[in-house]
Amino acid sequence: MNNRSKPNAVVVDTAHSDHATLQPVPVSSVRLHDDFWAPRLETIRTTTIPTQYELLESTGRLDNFRRAAGNLKQPFQGLVFNDSDVYKWLEAAAWALAAADDPALSQAVDTTIELIAAAQHADGYLNTYFSLDRASERWSNLRDLHELYCAGHLFQAAVAHVRATGHRTLLDVATRFADLICDTFGPGDDQQHGVPGHPEIEMALVELARATGEQRYLKQAAYFLDARGRGLIGGSAYHQDHAPLREQDRLVGHAVRAAYLCAGATDLYAETGEPELGRALDRLWRRMLNRQMYITGGLGPRHQGEAMGADFELPNARAYAETCAGIANAMWAWRMLQIEGAPTHADVMERALYNAVLPGISLDGTAYFYVNPLATDGAPEPGGKIYQRQPWFPCACCPPNVARTLATLPGFLYSVSSDTVWIHHYAASQADLRLGDGRSIQLLQRTRYPWDGQITVEVLTPGTFALNVRIPGWCATEPEQLRPTVNVNSIPCPGEVAPGQYVELRRTWAVGDSVCLHLPMPVQRVSTHPYALENSGRVALMRGPLLYCLEQVDHPGVDLRDVILPDSVPLSATYRPHSLNGIEVIEGSAAVAPVEMGWQESLYRTATSTPTVRRALDIVAIPYFAWANREVGAMQVWLRRG
Amino acid sequence: MNNRSKPNAVVVDTAHSDHATLQPVPVSSVRLHDDFWAPRLETIRTTTIPTQYELLESTGRLDNFRRAAGNLKQPFQGLVFNDSDVYKWLEAAAWALAAADDPALSQAVDTTIELIAAAQHADGYLNTYFSLDRASERWSNLRDLHELYCAGHLFQAAVAHVRATGHRTLLDVATRFADLICDTFGPGDDQQHGVPGHPEIEMALVELARATGEQRYLKQAAYFLDARGRGLIGGSAYHQDHAPLREQDRLVGHAVRAAYLCAGATDLYAETGEPELGRALDRLWRRMLNRQMYITGGLGPRHQGEAMGADFELPNARAYAETCAGIANAMWAWRMLQIEGAPTHADVMERALYNAVLPGISLDGTAYFYVNPLATDGAPEPGGKIYQRQPWFPCACCPPNVARTLATLPGFLYSVSSDTVWIHHYAASQADLRLGDGRSIQLLQRTRYPWDGQITVEVLTPGTFALNVRIPGWCATEPEQLRPTVNVNSIPCPGEVAPGQYVELRRTWAVGDSVCLHLPMPVQRVSTHPYALENSGRVALMRGPLLYCLEQVDHPGVDLRDVILPDSVPLSATYRPHSLNGIEVIEGSAAVAPVEMGWQESLYRTATSTPTVRRALDIVAIPYFAWANREVGAMQVWLRRG
Repeated sequence: MNNRSKPNAVVVDTAHSDHATLQPVPVSSVRLHDDFWAPRLETIRTTTIPTQYELLESTGRLDNFRRAAGNLKQPFQGLVFNDSDVYKWLEAAAWALAAADDPALSQAVDTTIELIAAAQHADGYLNTYFSLDRASERWSNLRDLHELYCAGHLFQAAVAHVRATGHRTLLDVATRFADLICDTFGPGDDQQHGVPGHPEIEMALVELARATGEQRYLKQAAYFLDARGRGLIGGSAYHQDHAPLREQDRLVGHAVRAAYLCAGATDLYAETGEPELGRALDRLWRRMLNRQMYITGGLGPRHQGEAMGADFELPNARAYAETCAGIANAMWAWRMLQIEGAPTHADVMERALYNAVLPGISLDGTAYFYVNPLATDGAPEPGGKIYQRQPWFPCACCPPNVARTLATLPGFLYSVSSDTVWIHHYAASQADLRLGDGRSIQLLQRTRYPWDGQITVEVLTPGTFALNVRIPGWCATEPEQLRPTVNVNSIPCPGEVAPGQYVELRRTWAVGDSVCLHLPMPVQRVSTHPYALENSGRVALMRGPLLYCLEQVDHPGVDLRDVILPDSVPLSATYRPHSLNGIEVIEGSAAVAPVEMGWQESLYRTATSTPTVRRALDIVAIPYFAWANREVGAMQVWLRRG
Repeated sequence: MNNRSKPNAVVVDTAHSDHATLQPVPVSSVRLHDDFWAPRLETIRTTTIPTQYELLESTGRLDNFRRAAGNLKQPFQGLVFNDSDVYKWLEAAAWALAAADDPALSQAVDTTIELIAAAQHADGYLNTYFSLDRASERWSNLRDLHELYCAGHLFQAAVAHVRATGHRTLLDVATRFADLICDTFGPGDDQQHGVPGHPEIEMALVELARATGEQRYLKQAAYFLDARGRGLIGGSAYHQDHAPLREQDRLVGHAVRAAYLCAGATDLYAETGEPELGRALDRLWRRMLNRQMYITGGLGPRHQGEAMGADFELPNARAYAETCAGIANAMWAWRMLQIEGAPTHADVMERALYNAVLPGISLDGTAYFYVNPLATDGAPEPGGKIYQRQPWFPCACCPPNVARTLATLPGFLYSVSSDTVWIHHYAASQADLRLGDGRSIQLLQRTRYPWDGQITVEVLTPGTFALNVRIPGWCATEPEQLRPTVNVNSIPCPGEVAPGQYVELRRTWAVGDSVCLHLPMPVQRVSTHPYALENSGRVALMRGPLLYCLEQVDHPGVDLRDVILPDSVPLSATYRPHSLNGIEVIEGSAAVAPVEMGWQESLYRTATSTPTVRRALDIVAIPYFAWANREVGAMQVWLRRG
């Protein structure tokens, strides 16, 4: 598959890392044929990617490249970082091509790459904003003008493209630009000292180094990490320049920037194994996980500066939780997971994929959330906006980011090490994997996950190796009959199968051997740390990896804020094949306690212990990812326990 | 007292309005001699105003006037609206001079007015930013550059100055500038169509019309109100240009701008009595009161855009609640109160004065809060800031705004109508008031308010007139013995004395007659509307008009977030003369329930009903206005009922 046109650089088809225990597998090595992800990825390829391509054209993003190449006389259109949307789209398209043949898409990709290549300057520089009349302003404002950010997305697209298609056309463009960047920036006396105002290129340079074997790209990523936090771009937390990463104790500032930086730093750590960096990443991860993360896996509660918050600052209706920040969390978690296969990272990644990334796109694949509240009363925001997915944004970072992330999904199911296959995520699929020791292993997954926790992994290749199967952290420990179990050829796995671990199944496998995981999915009521005030006295409903919510359309005439869910009420799940492309809903007999009349004309009053008047209410909860796909209206994740 | 140098304009010493039932009284007509306000106003005059004067000098704000007058060759210093700080300071100084002789301050005022007058252009224009090299840019950006805002503060200072001192020096400057503004802006074909990006001049022009009798200033204020919300400055809610005020249904956008606009519109309504405007103001007021106001009387929960929030959006630790927005609410309430003497307006004004304005300044009068959280864990904000009053700010709107508001306080105790004295606020003081019918009435208030609800109003002038005494809305209705009572010469007032009303005492008074109000001040637990999620299951402690809070320094070793206050625990108030300049503290036996160990390493988990382990904790609550005057540390207003 690798059509290597240049002998001087090796292109490897995964992000193989020197100091990581796990190695990812190519996107093309896993074929999904499940009812959950496969149709979604098909929608991404056949609807999302084509409609986004049309938008890249109609919004002038592609014209900016034509203009930079001298083929159009008109002003630059849109925001300074608009090139990055084209690159993210290309990355999505490349991964989609890795998963399916699509001649029309392949043609669109080639055409777009030609546009890009034609806009590249002779010295390798490439950014359509800084072309023609602005050519002299190159690198003049690294903090705000996103040149290195756009470059990073170009590099990621190029690596995706070569891995997916074997063609080096975009990679050659990328390496020429990367070489210029390596020449330009660094600690040398003859070099410019600076770091990008928006992290991104760190991940991209490490990946470019992995793909090409060029160590200077790795060194360049290390430079950008090491020079950060020293005031070169003004020292603001928003731009992640407030402190060197190795000295930070928690994520602050712009959430996407913060998590992208950590993801890039984790990529570097995977290559260097530097203990201090590893300790910093672990520290930042734990604080994020235990103090700063939405139950969705989303990050960044603050509208102000699209920023991380204080510990336990997790407003619901006023959540920002940008879709890109949920993606960034998944990206970081994925990279952390590769280091040593710690199950917490897989748990967060799964949480974010289902509940922070997937809500970002409508079921029909044509509209996107930028901001992801966990509650809304359905009224317009105080400036007039209502929460509804939009077909595009002037700052359109989220739409192609969702597309590229979901298009990569087949590559997230597994990792490998020398003689082990790590099974992170479950979906009906066939995989053809290459162990670190070179052997090919074929596996078949049969499951209705995430709707059902019964999973069979059938081994199609004989041999002695280990399967490390993930027992998600969301599994219950009691009662006994709801504990997860693992059987190999119907024989129970010895020892305790605890939630939040990888169970190592090391043996000599015969063709047809099967591993059966039973991950019971009772409806779970989840509570939050008491310091997260808005969730105080409330529960969220989860089933398996999915977060649920109530929507107005299922509860006409009821103010969802008045719903009370007693702890004692049983809740059950039912599959509704014709709802929202097929979902398990959660049903139960709850109550509604309308706010007393006295509150209509007051906000504060002497506290009383008047019991509220309740009436019975049958509730129907749907997966949070599917909300706002029917009518615009109220939505509520956290329900009063009452 | 009125040293009128020009015969062509009348200067009246109060804001007498044509369509308002109540008329304010001069600041100088009330002499405070209580233990609460009088020492504070003394601190304002002897410490705050002098230190702010030094800061106006050291930060270049006065130099900007010297520069504009051609007496200093240097660039303009600071922010475009820095002139307004000088004007607000002047207003504070003027009101302080109305209350006390202070030759040094009088001299500083005169010197400052000379500086200002010297900077005025020949045509009346006055703004030091738009002088010299920027003179040609006048009125080029009404949305952002605050020219009309600064003009408004000049006019308010001028009115304060003439009312306090009788000198027209500043008033003459103001009217010359106001005349230019009236010539420049309006609906005429030869006029510029525009409105200010920051409301303020509306109030000021109405007041200038009241002080001078010039109706064109009133017309100009009406123009600025009527032209707003029609897109002349871009249509943003932040700038209050999203819709005409008469069509709005709630406050949105920048909180200070919104409430200043309403205050100005109320001033206009007081002059015109226009029914549509009155209905709009009433509608906006009710929504604010019942859905948007902090228990402090503060407004504007959002850091993003310093903005009003959605209904019930009242975060505590993440409150913005700018000091100026609390001031603006008090200003608006005061103006609404004059319309017809509705007690709700006096209640809000009292709430805001004690709990939103007063916290803005340190007890020693030298440091200020800009942002007013209702809780903090004492940790620095992400970004590094900690909640602590500061001696000044680059954008220093709040410090002189607090000073001018508190300096006006003697004028807030009473209003008059033709044959009635309205008593709004209680403080030991002597008043010499002039009724609408021209009679002089002298009254003496004896009370320890706000620490005690026993108030005696002694009538020192014989005659037939009414005293309308306010029964605050915070008074209790039960039990019986805690109901408010009113006696005249020891005879109980007939009929029910309900909280939230003015009791009219109309009779023929003899010298020495006395009214005794008994407003019992039990410690009250106050709860919030159930939709305000952060306060769910919590109470705040109030006593009389004062909100209370817990501070870390009084509870060493306790995480205040763990404090639980059972409903059954009795709470008592004790006066501590040596604490925080003398305060009533609230004490009781509460409990502390430290967060269980399991939460240390998790943010979400399966909901359980495990009872928490509690230990007894004696709590001491202090008035919220006094917090952060000892050590920097945690603070909490809302306590778990548990």
